[in-house]
Amino acid sequence: MSQRKRLYIQEVATRDGFQNEKQFVDTDAKIALIDALSECGYAKIEVTSFTSPKAIPALRDAEAVMHGIARKPGIVYTVLVPNVRGAERALSSGVDEVNLVMSVSESHNRANLRMSREQSFAQLRDVINVVKATPVAINVSLSTAMGCPMEGDIAKEEVLGWMHRFADLGVHGITLCDTTGMAFPSQVGDLCRSARDSFSALELTLHFHNTRSMALANTLAALDAGIDRFDSSLGGLGGCPYAPGATGNVCTEELVHMLELDGYDTSIDLDRVLVASAQLPGLIGHDVPSQLLKAGRRLDLHPMPPAETVPEQHAFAKEGS
Amino acid sequence: MSQRKRLYIQEVATRDGFQNEKQFVDTDAKIALIDALSECGYAKIEVTSFTSPKAIPALRDAEAVMHGIARKPGIVYTVLVPNVRGAERALSSGVDEVNLVMSVSESHNRANLRMSREQSFAQLRDVINVVKATPVAINVSLSTAMGCPMEGDIAKEEVLGWMHRFADLGVHGITLCDTTGMAFPSQVGDLCRSARDSFSALELTLHFHNTRSMALANTLAALDAGIDRFDSSLGGLGGCPYAPGATGNVCTEELVHMLELDGYDTSIDLDRVLVASAQLPGLIGHDVPSQLLKAGRRLDLHPMPPAETVPEQHAFAKEGS
Repeated sequence: MSQRKRLYIQEVATRDGFQNEKQFVDTDAKIALIDALSECGYAKIEVTSFTSPKAIPALRDAEAVMHGIARKPGIVYTVLVPNVRGAERALSSGVDEVNLVMSVSESHNRANLRMSREQSFAQLRDVINVVKATPVAINVSLSTAMGCPMEGDIAKEEVLGWMHRFADLGVHGITLCDTTGMAFPSQVGDLCRSARDSFSALELTLHFHNTRSMALANTLAALDAGIDRFDSSLGGLGGCPYAPGATGNVCTEELVHMLELDGYDTSIDLDRVLVASAQLPGLIGHDVPSQLLKAGRRLDLHPMPPAETVPEQHAFAKEGS
Repeated sequence: MSQRKRLYIQEVATRDGFQNEKQFVDTDAKIALIDALSECGYAKIEVTSFTSPKAIPALRDAEAVMHGIARKPGIVYTVLVPNVRGAERALSSGVDEVNLVMSVSESHNRANLRMSREQSFAQLRDVINVVKATPVAINVSLSTAMGCPMEGDIAKEEVLGWMHRFADLGVHGITLCDTTGMAFPSQVGDLCRSARDSFSALELTLHFHNTRSMALANTLAALDAGIDRFDSSLGGLGGCPYAPGATGNVCTEELVHMLELDGYDTSIDLDRVLVASAQLPGLIGHDVPSQLLKAGRRLDLHPMPPAETVPEQHAFAKEGS
């Protein structure tokens, strides 16, 4: 019956969001949150990261979380994996997918991962060879694909070149990440069209940050170019070390709110997402960037103020706005 | 030489923004800010509001501000005017344009202006008759044109109907206002196409709020429908009484940043706008919503951290994002 285009929403808050939080989120609370998210209609949930507990203490409970959650059929439970050791831990935990990461920018790769891109590629190739012997899917997230905070513009050919190298290794999906919110709509449209044309067999995901308030505008541009799969983060959790105080990943509830209004089928239960998002401040000890959580959905209506209680100042106070 | 499409940016911070501020901004500071804005390349600046000083004490210095500013040729200096008394004050101050306001929604008009829409229309018709005898231009801002926080959806025909009534009175321009940030992209595109088709002789402005983070996405939709004129507010100043804590008007520097990256010619000097925006917290006593002010422009680059200072936790900390 429905003519609405199906989109796939992938939640990253418990990995990309929590890894940046100073306050450790209790393992049971992580499990309860992920179980709640599993009832929200996501296509994929990035559960945690199998990195060294010393490197990311916030996610030191990766095994316990993966084993504790109630897996819902149909949802892909993915985890970040930096190397073969992490891949082995992830495979032992029965993940559906591993997500590998490197930067398209040499400077950002060195700053973030402390090795050259070629060293990262060699390390990830080893991981791919291990995982390819199993039924577990492999996704590669390419950071700084729309700009590097140290180098600036990244040539589209550079991004497509790294996509080719990973596609040749047989990965299932690639995520183009706007790591520090440098993407703008016409750039996104151009990159997405080229990526779609060149890699029609790959599962292609766009990963936006709202650092400069363009995440939803960039999403429109990606949709226009045929993209149907988006990462997003509950509450807009996830920061950017190069922009202190700036907002983080595109906010799941704001993304879904817009997409559903625009007639897309995200399969997401926005009520449940908002309930889950409202719990975040209690878990991490601070407010989240989500504006939708503050303002409510567009049709969450307000009562008419009784005439006698309208303060004098309020008359005309919003004129013209 | 340039093939870039010209867009017209209209600054509303000193009216739509300041009127909501508790802290009175000193008259000299207002004048200095507007003089700085006059050097930024705006098509229009909404200077102040000729309402009753009791109704909006924040703008009680309307005459002094209008007389104090250095008017730059080519910029339209407009002011909000609620009635004939306000129009007379505005005309005495030598404004280029008066901006009249009413809501498309009956409930919002009653809550905001404490009269019915028909009463507002009659009052504004009187203003138009006074101003039409002068060379001063007349713009009408239609509030809640994309949704009412009390009534919900507003039929497009309702908006077009009010536009017709004002067009018949001979106004020069009409602004469609998303007063509480309820607009979404496909709705904006549809309304703008209809408005453009029906009123090709009118100067048509779109006025977005970022309450639910869709202001820049809605701007893309309006551009797509041929709109070339946008209100915006320095720093994102301007609130929404129905969404406490939510962001306000679309932020000038974020709007211009995106539009220029997308290849449009706004004629705005973004450097100067950012300098002006950075002064706002000192004037109003609190932070502004602008993310761009925190994050900087996309090509404001950062130095590469020295290898030995990259903390252990930072390695992998931003992976996948």
